[in-house]
Amino acid sequence: MPRFPSFSARTSRISGSVYEKFRARMTVQGGSLIGLHIGDAFPPPPYPIPIDETFARTHAGFHRYCDTFGVAALRDALVEKLRDDNHLEVTRDNVLVTAGATNALSAIVQSLVDDGDDVLLLSPFWPFFRGMVRMAGGNAVEVPLYAKLYDTPQTDVRALLEDALTERTVAVYLNTPNNPSGKVLTRAQVETIADFARRHNLWLISDEAYDGMTFDGREHVSPASLPGAAERTIAVYTFSKVYMFAGLRLGYAVGGADVIRTVNKAMVHQLYSPSTVAQQMMVEAVRSRTAWSRDFVDACARIRDTVAAALRVDAALPDGAYYFFFPVDAYLRGRSYERVIEELLDAGVSVAPGADFGVDFAEWIRICFAGESPQRVLEGVERLNRVLAG
Amino acid sequence: MPRFPSFSARTSRISGSVYEKFRARMTVQGGSLIGLHIGDAFPPPPYPIPIDETFARTHAGFHRYCDTFGVAALRDALVEKLRDDNHLEVTRDNVLVTAGATNALSAIVQSLVDDGDDVLLLSPFWPFFRGMVRMAGGNAVEVPLYAKLYDTPQTDVRALLEDALTERTVAVYLNTPNNPSGKVLTRAQVETIADFARRHNLWLISDEAYDGMTFDGREHVSPASLPGAAERTIAVYTFSKVYMFAGLRLGYAVGGADVIRTVNKAMVHQLYSPSTVAQQMMVEAVRSRTAWSRDFVDACARIRDTVAAALRVDAALPDGAYYFFFPVDAYLRGRSYERVIEELLDAGVSVAPGADFGVDFAEWIRICFAGESPQRVLEGVERLNRVLAG
Repeated sequence: MPRFPSFSARTSRISGSVYEKFRARMTVQGGSLIGLHIGDAFPPPPYPIPIDETFARTHAGFHRYCDTFGVAALRDALVEKLRDDNHLEVTRDNVLVTAGATNALSAIVQSLVDDGDDVLLLSPFWPFFRGMVRMAGGNAVEVPLYAKLYDTPQTDVRALLEDALTERTVAVYLNTPNNPSGKVLTRAQVETIADFARRHNLWLISDEAYDGMTFDGREHVSPASLPGAAERTIAVYTFSKVYMFAGLRLGYAVGGADVIRTVNKAMVHQLYSPSTVAQQMMVEAVRSRTAWSRDFVDACARIRDTVAAALRVDAALPDGAYYFFFPVDAYLRGRSYERVIEELLDAGVSVAPGADFGVDFAEWIRICFAGESPQRVLEGVERLNRVLAG
Repeated sequence: MPRFPSFSARTSRISGSVYEKFRARMTVQGGSLIGLHIGDAFPPPPYPIPIDETFARTHAGFHRYCDTFGVAALRDALVEKLRDDNHLEVTRDNVLVTAGATNALSAIVQSLVDDGDDVLLLSPFWPFFRGMVRMAGGNAVEVPLYAKLYDTPQTDVRALLEDALTERTVAVYLNTPNNPSGKVLTRAQVETIADFARRHNLWLISDEAYDGMTFDGREHVSPASLPGAAERTIAVYTFSKVYMFAGLRLGYAVGGADVIRTVNKAMVHQLYSPSTVAQQMMVEAVRSRTAWSRDFVDACARIRDTVAAALRVDAALPDGAYYFFFPVDAYLRGRSYERVIEELLDAGVSVAPGADFGVDFAEWIRICFAGESPQRVLEGVERLNRVLAG
């Protein structure tokens, strides 16, 4: 059972890059080494892809394979970001660039979960994570927490976790700011969860995809920044949310050097590496992030307030992320839930069905207020009001 | 046991995109539907990434999530390419865009292989495929073929396969042009393998990453183009080899609509989708491929001949791909294999060790003649000659 610090049986059956074992000897020689070991194309492709010419000229390898751990300059920029924004003291060896947070979480689950293992999923949760645990043969044990905290801030988080623990539990999946509920856990709550993981020797999978998307001055607490938590925590971040570059498919995993090497082994068997050119394009973007990414967070906070004022359905005001998540059972008026989703679609507004976020949320819906223009979001909310509130 | 047309147990435990079930109702409405279902950012990011301005302006969604099956225009361009180059009659529903051939093969193995299943790997093979089978809990059963065909073209392919077949066999992994040996199978050989798969109801996983990279006028035969073979064949292609765009991490899987949907389910749990902007950039590249990609293949053929003339070690002349693969046992002169690899590195040339390509190739090495400039490749060959031939 791969409790911390063990890994899954499947990762012991595979090796990483074919060339990993010669890396040290290869690095020593630098450019004088003639690399006949990898299958790649030496000339730039004669097809001119529509990227900036100066960039292409100054990034000679943009079309080629890269280090599967990530482009060095990007990993270095992320080390600084993690120190400044997340209060994590890490080096390049603790960072693995991945194809989005999805890929990071997928490779982590493949690395840490064996058949029959239990993973505690604080719910509601991002739907694909449950699927990833099932793909790995594990059991997703749902522990309702985030939505409950809006009504009952004093919920005993430790008691919920202790009740769900079994002999087979190997990891806890934590996601703050939370998709779909927007809940941002307090420092004390994150400490409780990290302490629970430590006491029971569990891995802590910390999904921080909405890192930076908090409202009203709320603090985002990265669990690995807490004393004694770093070694068992694998944190996951993305370029798709606050940085708005979902179309590049980039994210990164941060953890101990051993676990990062194991997650890399799983990742190279899923896709070799994320895009070289996308990584190169994001180096300066990370370095200058505070100058350009704050406006979007501020805009989201304003849209949140406008939507809250327009919505004629009871819903908690989200602390962070960019969703409202709320039950609609009081608004069904004899209609089935499925029928209401269809009526919404027929009225011209699509919403995410609640069941995907956990078994307790079958009659909830999630709406995103950042994926369409504010005008269209408000028109969508009006359509939703008409179908639900009448 | 997921023999054709069944899928792995793990894919029955997961669902695809949360929105898949509403896709038809959503498509009907087009732009009038307000999408509050997906978590995405509506404005273009204020950070100007170095792509062509006109391209960015005319591809409004370049920074956003895309259809997880692939950008429609790219799938359509690939349908035409598959018809013209591979003689496959397919539609958009038969094509899934993936993060390289690696990701396609990984999602396919996750979709078709359960614990304890046997997969027949014609060897020598691309190393990561064996790891993928092991990640899925399957057994990689090695069937030496490609290298043997240089010396013994009349090898009885059917007998080799029949000998390796067990009750647990679910699939055959075929790779022509072959990495590492460069062997290009004849039409008759591909027919034999496809017929073997049909008779025993096996899936046929056809890795065609080196599609187009054949020399001396040799024909590349796509198994799915053979009568009766399409339904059980999942073919895999890439933008990384003949198209020289490894750094974009794009490839595609081609198969029956059912298997493509299942492979998509596995893929969205690995990385959601490949890069939107990379897909958009490749639409015209695919359409104009014959105009710009042929020169590289011709250049590779010329370099192959130059290397063959320079190499003072016995090696078969490759039919395709861009590698020489040969045994070095006759050149060890009392040194261990490992020691010779180290001596090569110390002499300033890196090669790929043979054991990764199959248990029969522990004393072989692979060299790539396309990943460095021809001048440097030849210098690398001289260094190799000195260490091996003395």
